[in-house]
Amino acid sequence: MEQTLEKNQTATFITSANLLEHWQGHRGLTRRVIEAFPEKEFFEYSIGGMRPFAAMVQELLAIAAPGLREIVGGNTEDLNEHLEHQNSKAYLLESWDQATAEINQLWAQIPEEKFTETILAFGQYEGTVWSTILYFIDNEIHHRAQGFVFLRSLGIEPPYFWQR
Amino acid sequence: MEQTLEKNQTATFITSANLLEHWQGHRGLTRRVIEAFPEKEFFEYSIGGMRPFAAMVQELLAIAAPGLREIVGGNTEDLNEHLEHQNSKAYLLESWDQATAEINQLWAQIPEEKFTETILAFGQYEGTVWSTILYFIDNEIHHRAQGFVFLRSLGIEPPYFWQR
Repeated sequence: MEQTLEKNQTATFITSANLLEHWQGHRGLTRRVIEAFPEKEFFEYSIGGMRPFAAMVQELLAIAAPGLREIVGGNTEDLNEHLEHQNSKAYLLESWDQATAEINQLWAQIPEEKFTETILAFGQYEGTVWSTILYFIDNEIHHRAQGFVFLRSLGIEPPYFWQR
Repeated sequence: MEQTLEKNQTATFITSANLLEHWQGHRGLTRRVIEAFPEKEFFEYSIGGMRPFAAMVQELLAIAAPGLREIVGGNTEDLNEHLEHQNSKAYLLESWDQATAEINQLWAQIPEEKFTETILAFGQYEGTVWSTILYFIDNEIHHRAQGFVFLRSLGIEPPYFWQR
């Protein structure tokens, strides 16, 4: 029993390749949630003083690929959530697809030992690389779920959560 | 480059011990979201025809410890979201704390090689153990975020998402 416990501490829960696939599965679902919004409500609708879903999506775009670029390149990226021309769903969907491809390319460049290193993401958030990347994913799930409530409140059925 | 790519496929992204800590961090945040709800609204308030937050919490309780019991014991657990006496916040918080302790105990009993095995969770959801456990966590983040919107809509500031 003690031996099991000790081995369990360093056992791999998930490999790097599976985590990428898991993340991209979530990103596919988020893309379908963006698509489900009517153009106007995507940019304007909100509940309880929150940001509209488009602003949350801009945050997600500002984090995912730029955050990985920082992890791979070691440079400090700015957290820029207000890019120009982000005033149409089509533009944001195109940016989403570009990020999807960039994430795959960057992922292949992360060396095995990198995940346990400590970084200062966007020059301000300290943590291990694994916890930083999980934060990116968790933050996406969090905001997307808020988009689900906005859709429900608009009488629109969101995509299935379990569909990736 | 090719060598890096190949090594990257099987590299550990996160260890079992860190994943447990990560999950329990999320569970601590969910507990604070439960606490933030007024008693009545916890059981009755909803948006767009969704379930009230208490019903989502019952689902989370029906999944986490029972799901892990199944993974550890190999038996089939029922997905029982409607336990008796779950009509007070205090009772659900107590159940939450019991689950927290049980998850820690069960986690130590998962052998290293188990995470890549395929299981049929609750007798119906097929997947690897790692993807099943990530689903439990992702589902918690998803529903908790919906609780965040309910709170905002009630004029109540939710706990900080990044606080674990």
